Amino acid sequence: MRVITTIKEMQGLARTFRLEGRSIGFVPTMGYLHEGHMALMEKARNENDIVVLSIFVNPLQFGEGEDLDAYPRDFEHDRKAAESKGVDCVFYPSPEEMYPSDSTVKVTVQDRTDVLCGRSRPGHFDGVATVLTKLFNIIMPDRAYFGLKDAQQVAVVEGLVADLNIPVELVPVPTIREGDGLAKSSRNVYLSPSERNQAKELFRSLQLAKEYIENGERNPREIITLMEDWLRTHTDAAIDYVSIYSYPQLKPVGALSGKVIVALAVKFSKARLIDNLILEIETRG
Amino acid sequence: MRVITTIKEMQGLARTFRLEGRSIGFVPTMGYLHEGHMALMEKARNENDIVVLSIFVNPLQFGEGEDLDAYPRDFEHDRKAAESKGVDCVFYPSPEEMYPSDSTVKVTVQDRTDVLCGRSRPGHFDGVATVLTKLFNIIMPDRAYFGLKDAQQVAVVEGLVADLNIPVELVPVPTIREGDGLAKSSRNVYLSPSERNQAKELFRSLQLAKEYIENGERNPREIITLMEDWLRTHTDAAIDYVSIYSYPQLKPVGALSGKVIVALAVKFSKARLIDNLILEIETRG
Repeated sequence: MRVITTIKEMQGLARTFRLEGRSIGFVPTMGYLHEGHMALMEKARNENDIVVLSIFVNPLQFGEGEDLDAYPRDFEHDRKAAESKGVDCVFYPSPEEMYPSDSTVKVTVQDRTDVLCGRSRPGHFDGVATVLTKLFNIIMPDRAYFGLKDAQQVAVVEGLVADLNIPVELVPVPTIREGDGLAKSSRNVYLSPSERNQAKELFRSLQLAKEYIENGERNPREIITLMEDWLRTHTDAAIDYVSIYSYPQLKPVGALSGKVIVALAVKFSKARLIDNLILEIETRG
Repeated sequence: MRVITTIKEMQGLARTFRLEGRSIGFVPTMGYLHEGHMALMEKARNENDIVVLSIFVNPLQFGEGEDLDAYPRDFEHDRKAAESKGVDCVFYPSPEEMYPSDSTVKVTVQDRTDVLCGRSRPGHFDGVATVLTKLFNIIMPDRAYFGLKDAQQVAVVEGLVADLNIPVELVPVPTIREGDGLAKSSRNVYLSPSERNQAKELFRSLQLAKEYIENGERNPREIITLMEDWLRTHTDAAIDYVSIYSYPQLKPVGALSGKVIVALAVKFSKARLIDNLILEIETRG
């Protein structure tokens, strides 16, 4: 496995892979790899000749007062994890390599960003879109792998790729869960034993929504209220949002139909957790 | 020669060329081809296996009140011109193909844009950057050809390609001139016979600047004054600007050194003309 720190070397290598007709699978990350990332690397390994993992804590997607400096880093752990999954190249550039002081071009996203988690993070998705546009140009992947746990990011990246005609296939990968349904996350370690036990109710509330929809409920307001009641009754967490939108457009829906996302975010004492389900709803005749 | 109107077909073809190891030279235009474009196509033809010409009047780079609808178009003429220069593919998409109604991602350029012609065209270069990012992703060129007559555009595109790590080599092509030095332009036909005769003085004023610099003048203010005096004395045109900046950064310079651009824009009765010289100035020991 090669660790590459310069854009020039990575781009040269990618060009060589392309000329040799070898397909490139790309897993973009900010490092501190967990089982969610493992699933992305595994899928990329199964579907491509070459797997490139990027590790870059992107300053452009952190807002003022956000935890850029405190963001956890452990390159040695990540290197071993990538190697164990058969990754060919780890692209691990410095912030100065990615953003020389005179860089002034930005990619801005004007849709799908002012809802869910994006509402409280202005500019966040512009930073995501800019760094991904750069990484796609540097790594030239045939396929890029994203976890559906952050479904809004997947929706924004789908818009980015479509609008800029980026020649890459996006592969959304289902959320990896614990035995009781809790979505895997680095942040789960911040839960107290009691909170950890309550946290399974997030997924249960999503399952509840699914059941009601399968039984014919088409009013998003009803489903949101049911979920909020469930979360209030079964957990001590503060609800940040419970929302239902069309997917991947992330627009409000009147009566449910087509592809929709049911998404939630809650705050326990030391951890903010998110989860979602994406459902395909039959339109009733 | 193939004329291609859909992104999907053009991108598929480009992918095939790349897989076959054939180099792609790209000439982006808004059509209504003149001798400046001919020189770009010739150079692209000499340096690449495949030449792709795009013809697209990009609405995103026209401001309110600018002449998007009146912009001259003559596809039959352009098709023949491209064929005569050995172009392999003309990419000729509709505005709807390039900008579906729901597209919301933009590339913004925050530098090199608020001087020269950019000063009077806010948002113009964001439109240029967005369409070029799309075209680079669709046509996947090894090299892209731009005329130095619009030197600011070349500078902005150099910034775009560097900042987004777009894997393309930019090839700036020197301005094509008439026998008396007037830069070739579609707009020259709007000059009266007397104005056409005066118009050679634009290039003369640039040559004058060059001579003074070669003779040791390093004060940009002095050179600008000399040029303005020359233009006022020898033409009836109104001066829009005469400017000297570092190139391609387009920053003001105190004493001249390194690479600089001497640029001017003037207005005759029915035509606004621009011209420039890019000079490499020795720093004196």
